Amino acid sequence: MPSVDVAGEFETIRRLLAPLAHPEWGRGLLDDVAVVPSRTGYDLVLTKDTIVEGVHFLPDDPLDTVAQKLLRVNLSDLASKGAEPFGYLLGCFWSNRCGWPEREAFAAGLKRDQAAFHVALMGGDTVSTPGPASFSLTMLGWTPRGQTIGRDGARPGDLILVTGAIGDGYLGLQAARGLLSLDPGRIAALVDHYRAPLPRLAFAGQIRELATAAIDVSDGLLADLGHVAAASGVAMEVTLDSLPVSAAGQAWLDGRVDGEDARLQLATGGDDYEIAFTAPPAHETALRREADRQHLRLTCIGRVSRGTGLTVHHAGAVVAVDRTGWTHR
Amino acid sequence: MPSVDVAGEFETIRRLLAPLAHPEWGRGLLDDVAVVPSRTGYDLVLTKDTIVEGVHFLPDDPLDTVAQKLLRVNLSDLASKGAEPFGYLLGCFWSNRCGWPEREAFAAGLKRDQAAFHVALMGGDTVSTPGPASFSLTMLGWTPRGQTIGRDGARPGDLILVTGAIGDGYLGLQAARGLLSLDPGRIAALVDHYRAPLPRLAFAGQIRELATAAIDVSDGLLADLGHVAAASGVAMEVTLDSLPVSAAGQAWLDGRVDGEDARLQLATGGDDYEIAFTAPPAHETALRREADRQHLRLTCIGRVSRGTGLTVHHAGAVVAVDRTGWTHR
Repeated sequence: MPSVDVAGEFETIRRLLAPLAHPEWGRGLLDDVAVVPSRTGYDLVLTKDTIVEGVHFLPDDPLDTVAQKLLRVNLSDLASKGAEPFGYLLGCFWSNRCGWPEREAFAAGLKRDQAAFHVALMGGDTVSTPGPASFSLTMLGWTPRGQTIGRDGARPGDLILVTGAIGDGYLGLQAARGLLSLDPGRIAALVDHYRAPLPRLAFAGQIRELATAAIDVSDGLLADLGHVAAASGVAMEVTLDSLPVSAAGQAWLDGRVDGEDARLQLATGGDDYEIAFTAPPAHETALRREADRQHLRLTCIGRVSRGTGLTVHHAGAVVAVDRTGWTHR
Repeated sequence: MPSVDVAGEFETIRRLLAPLAHPEWGRGLLDDVAVVPSRTGYDLVLTKDTIVEGVHFLPDDPLDTVAQKLLRVNLSDLASKGAEPFGYLLGCFWSNRCGWPEREAFAAGLKRDQAAFHVALMGGDTVSTPGPASFSLTMLGWTPRGQTIGRDGARPGDLILVTGAIGDGYLGLQAARGLLSLDPGRIAALVDHYRAPLPRLAFAGQIRELATAAIDVSDGLLADLGHVAAASGVAMEVTLDSLPVSAAGQAWLDGRVDGEDARLQLATGGDDYEIAFTAPPAHETALRREADRQHLRLTCIGRVSRGTGLTVHHAGAVVAVDRTGWTHR
């Protein structure tokens, strides 16, 4: 389509994006399409996530980390399905603040993460917008045929497990806004996590082989587990006492008066990009062996049962849920 | 990702978009990914186009036709590559003006064109934005392995052909803005073309089998042919005298004092979504036979030659090109 600033968009594609193109399937970004050969015995897995300045990232977030976050939230979706990403299509809506240096920074962030996660640019579109800077990314990956993990496979008796730590996304946003009082090293770690979370791609193979259902933690751990419970037609019992938190998260918890409310904030904040999943108890040993090998924390936080809905426990009591969120009883 | 208006977005997905999902590969839009089985002997072809209110569509364009235009500009890209579309991922950035009735209208436009063009929704993302309404769509299709037509296959001696008529996109935008004085029937036809151009999917098979290079006319016929000439490393001679125009286009031309300048406006205006392509003269008879069968106009507007660049002829003289656009000599 014609765009307002065609010359600038052509230059952006030619100088900044074409060097990131997949050597074969991206056609140098010189054609209107990308062409991916079918891979016998595999399914193509696709996801598309969208971010808007002022909504999903902050106006003063550096654009290289905005690019990294955009890639990583999509990579996280694929990791949680057991898929192996290989490429992506990118839609850029550049705002007035996106001059050449900002576009260079954005491309530098893409380049850094393309190398880290072994993906390449396949195509897309770049336009100018009078609104806030916005980006939309379609990530592509492979799974062996029929082995993509969904939200709907959890079975009564399964364990509920989560990788890494929960709550750093929530605390990271507050840290980036200057709202947290913790020591500077912890603040920096939280801001880093908020701006460039680590997708758990290294664990995707174990998810694919050993999990019954999985989701990446983006809306908030409890909400995301609720999606899995609903899709699977099961009930879930989760205990907040087991919630894995980072060193920074523990330091923050230590400063709270109401520990239960604080844990609920971490468990509902979202933006963690860990994998929450279910697996039969018989697979726990194999899962822990591989997690240990990767030095990846893996925590059992509950159990799947018959019924519907999510029940949250803390300190031996049930934490009640109402329609507008989570309150303790 | 969490969004500002999560409840509204969930409802939009559940009530308006989930009914449009591909019955198998879209997973009811209840998962984070779409899963497409590999198709032996075929390549997957992907394109992504993006539209912004006030830039690519007008603030008073009805949202059902905005949805149709978004689908159709992407379908046009696939048609010009000889591909057969089957599904798409959709990113919606709803502005403040996109209340429930507007979202319903948008979904109704998608539904209408899904039926017309045999595609289904595979997944995507929907968010609220404080900026203008914007949409990004990734279209997916198949071509038999290795048969996707590029921009880079034009050879000296090939004919340059174009489907349908050129200039209705340019005139349609003016008509939609109330800037044209033609009779109301012609105005309505031009506005219809601007809002919902017809992608030439029915001719995609002939493009794939008989064309050497092809592009859909979005930037403007001459600019798009320039892209093909550059990618193919050839020169092109085009004659404006042969430019195919619609009845409305002819009525507009008849009212111009400078016919050459008027034809140049039509040939550079863009937004036509016809297919401009090159083919060996030996294939012309077969191409015309199929075009006739489809009642599709097919016009030879020039010839590929050795060298570089595009030379435009009119009334026996050469029309010169400068860096900022097209002027006549």
